[in-house]
Amino acid sequence: MLVTCPCLPVSARVSVTMDAAEFRRRGKEMVDYVADYLENIEQRPVYPDVEPGYLRSLIPTEAPLEPEKYDDILADVERIIMPGVTHWHSPYFYAYFPSASSYPAILADMLCTGIGCIGFSWAASPACTELETVMLDWLGKMLNLPETFIAGTHGHGGGVIQSTASEATLMSMLAARCKAVRYVQASNPEKSQGEILSKLVAYTSEQAHSSVERASLIAGVIMKKVPTDNSYAVEGSMLKKILEQDKAAGLIPFYFCATLGTTPSCAFDHITELGPICKEESMWMHIDAAYAGSAFICPEFRPLLNGIEFADSFNFNPHKWLLINFDCSTMWVKEREAIIGAFKMEPLYLKHENQESGIITDYRHWQIPLGRRFRSLKMWFVFRMYGLQGLQDHIRKQVGLAKEFESLVRADNRFEICAKVIMGLVCFRLKGSNGLNELLLKKITKSREIHLVPCHLSGRFVLRFAICARSTETRHIQQAWRHITQLSFELLQESQE
Amino acid sequence: MLVTCPCLPVSARVSVTMDAAEFRRRGKEMVDYVADYLENIEQRPVYPDVEPGYLRSLIPTEAPLEPEKYDDILADVERIIMPGVTHWHSPYFYAYFPSASSYPAILADMLCTGIGCIGFSWAASPACTELETVMLDWLGKMLNLPETFIAGTHGHGGGVIQSTASEATLMSMLAARCKAVRYVQASNPEKSQGEILSKLVAYTSEQAHSSVERASLIAGVIMKKVPTDNSYAVEGSMLKKILEQDKAAGLIPFYFCATLGTTPSCAFDHITELGPICKEESMWMHIDAAYAGSAFICPEFRPLLNGIEFADSFNFNPHKWLLINFDCSTMWVKEREAIIGAFKMEPLYLKHENQESGIITDYRHWQIPLGRRFRSLKMWFVFRMYGLQGLQDHIRKQVGLAKEFESLVRADNRFEICAKVIMGLVCFRLKGSNGLNELLLKKITKSREIHLVPCHLSGRFVLRFAICARSTETRHIQQAWRHITQLSFELLQESQE
Repeated sequence: MLVTCPCLPVSARVSVTMDAAEFRRRGKEMVDYVADYLENIEQRPVYPDVEPGYLRSLIPTEAPLEPEKYDDILADVERIIMPGVTHWHSPYFYAYFPSASSYPAILADMLCTGIGCIGFSWAASPACTELETVMLDWLGKMLNLPETFIAGTHGHGGGVIQSTASEATLMSMLAARCKAVRYVQASNPEKSQGEILSKLVAYTSEQAHSSVERASLIAGVIMKKVPTDNSYAVEGSMLKKILEQDKAAGLIPFYFCATLGTTPSCAFDHITELGPICKEESMWMHIDAAYAGSAFICPEFRPLLNGIEFADSFNFNPHKWLLINFDCSTMWVKEREAIIGAFKMEPLYLKHENQESGIITDYRHWQIPLGRRFRSLKMWFVFRMYGLQGLQDHIRKQVGLAKEFESLVRADNRFEICAKVIMGLVCFRLKGSNGLNELLLKKITKSREIHLVPCHLSGRFVLRFAICARSTETRHIQQAWRHITQLSFELLQESQE
Repeated sequence: MLVTCPCLPVSARVSVTMDAAEFRRRGKEMVDYVADYLENIEQRPVYPDVEPGYLRSLIPTEAPLEPEKYDDILADVERIIMPGVTHWHSPYFYAYFPSASSYPAILADMLCTGIGCIGFSWAASPACTELETVMLDWLGKMLNLPETFIAGTHGHGGGVIQSTASEATLMSMLAARCKAVRYVQASNPEKSQGEILSKLVAYTSEQAHSSVERASLIAGVIMKKVPTDNSYAVEGSMLKKILEQDKAAGLIPFYFCATLGTTPSCAFDHITELGPICKEESMWMHIDAAYAGSAFICPEFRPLLNGIEFADSFNFNPHKWLLINFDCSTMWVKEREAIIGAFKMEPLYLKHENQESGIITDYRHWQIPLGRRFRSLKMWFVFRMYGLQGLQDHIRKQVGLAKEFESLVRADNRFEICAKVIMGLVCFRLKGSNGLNELLLKKITKSREIHLVPCHLSGRFVLRFAICARSTETRHIQQAWRHITQLSFELLQESQE
């Protein structure tokens, strides 16, 4: 296979490094490797036992001059890579929020890589653009989004796949910034852009994801955090109060990012109250439902999205909870002109015949990067292979597991639940000091049997237990709880001694 | 396989949509589908014959309620998707710049999707972070980058994989902006950030990619385009002249983006002249070598990178020309603190034990998105399966094909070459009006036998012929030229009539 005889001409040497026949064989091996990995993942320690810098000592300091054997590379995957992997798809992984994975999505991803087109404009690969628009319509309808967010054949809105929620937030803020500057300049033509920018204020919950504040740093605008109520959600009155103060001080409120399903505790801002305030103040309302958004395909969770009709843009991550492998962050806007207008550039090498037809989309205007993969194939495969009901089943099953874990915690009076359990996240702690809970988490992390991360809620150090892997079942939850109570028992014993 | 009997409990229904055994079978089929696709790609028309909106009419308006059969989905790939795909890996695709593809990269991508970890911090998957740091060192050494760009075990610099060059440019500009504001405020503490921002000026070539200007729109700074010499490159004197004018007008030059291998004509800015000017003016110099960067692994092209020692950051896209499938845009910085400092956020749920150890990297601080795939696996597989020599062979072969095409053009006196052919891009046109060349391109596009895009050089409409697919051989170049001359013959006949 690895023919690199120097007497061959260059072109012959290049063509035989790995040919299609060899790829067929190795590809099938890789399919089995991935299936084996996912089928047996719970036998691996969920959190790796390596020290920072472990990998560098295991591999050469430079790339090889000549080709190596494929078998050696594959052997090194087990020897070098796997010992350092945090296994996000282990049923004992309860950290952060889930990263979705399903077999249909993996198949679609293989097809996407095989086709390997770069769909920055319609012409660069029409199928890549068009399937995306239609898949975003499909998903928008599953969520029962207002008609204004659906592209259809004549809509002014529509959806796009972003890589991450961070990028969706940034795009919405940039679109809002551009709109705000134009709006202010329309009645105050003497004001410079710089002058206006320095007065623009974006708002979000003090519980919002760090990427929202980060977006404001990139956009160069002031960001203010709105305090939350005792369920960690922003109420209308809280936003209103700050807006009044800021307007009185000569600032210009222009953007509010509401969160549905915050990262620390899965809290839901009161968007039915917040939406009308944003309308009244001509502020852009973006809704970040990165994790929770997937659940809105279930009628019983859809009421949490009421108020969406006030939003200018909405985003969630099917790559978190809708069985579509990373990356696939779906974003909808009411007015595509607003997002395209944020920074439209038209060099000749990207122009094409159908550009001005009005019925096509060039997604490069909707996002930060220029290039983009054919990610809508993953949505298409998953939606068709699961059906809406199959996806609803997945959400309900994981919420059920969270409720089950909640019951276990509530039945043990050494522990307390720290936030209402609405979806797949349980926030809990040992009754007692933050120090005690920090020690418990350290013990859990060190044991490597399950993996959790913490958060702060009202100054308290809290453990987050998120149902993550698709393969998580009751027995894993029960085992996780036995493990946590065992470590807690040891800890409480030690602290008494 | 598709068991959705409603009498089963939810958990049983979910688990059988596609199990591991079925994935093994379907995965192997998909490997064959991808191999068949790539082996027989030249039998497909390179550019699709579809009208905008073609796809919507072929698929339902809503997602199915119940699961569909996998065979139906696969059949729809040929029926619905393929007719609308622009085949970037066809040897008759000569548009834009190449999008890399190789079998080892596809295998690594399958593994990446299978592992499915999200490597935003070291703890989120140590192997994901550490392999990336080491692979960027490997590649940096292949390019013979100055030691200051190599992370090693004690370096202050290092590399990161960005999704696209657009993001690398934006990140470098944000880092430069932050540094500039701090620098100005150090000696003028009374100046507000807004005031300083409104005076900051970024510079780039008038031939630079549109993403550079776009970055300035996002960063909210003034962008000025520097005129180029008759080889479409920026000289030191040209930048110096504008800088003097701007400083005299009270503006603050803070950033220059040099291009090595411009998109229109693959021109190379004179960085040995530009670098010292940037140093003198305390401006950040970023080098965007998106396409051409891959060629610097060949000693004969490396002199074009001389002057890199003056750069603060450097980026190119192995996903263009180094056989690593999209996305993989590699960026190096001299001072990691400068890029991390652009916007560092530390919420508790992203903190981890080893964070402050000084020898680890949290790549989320280096990029716009939070989440990230295990993309360095693609580099590792490709570097090891090809070896440095195999990669050099690939570059040299494609440059050779471009030179061959150049000779064909030069031998026909109806045509002219419009820019020096240095790498894999040939800019050419029919001697005559822009209108004539626009008509020729229209004929080429309509024929769908080969695919090209145009550019403007010195006000002239020019055809770009870029060697793209890995499988392009002499016979394809010869065939493409026969086709172009045939269409030109017809066109010239028609225009005489």
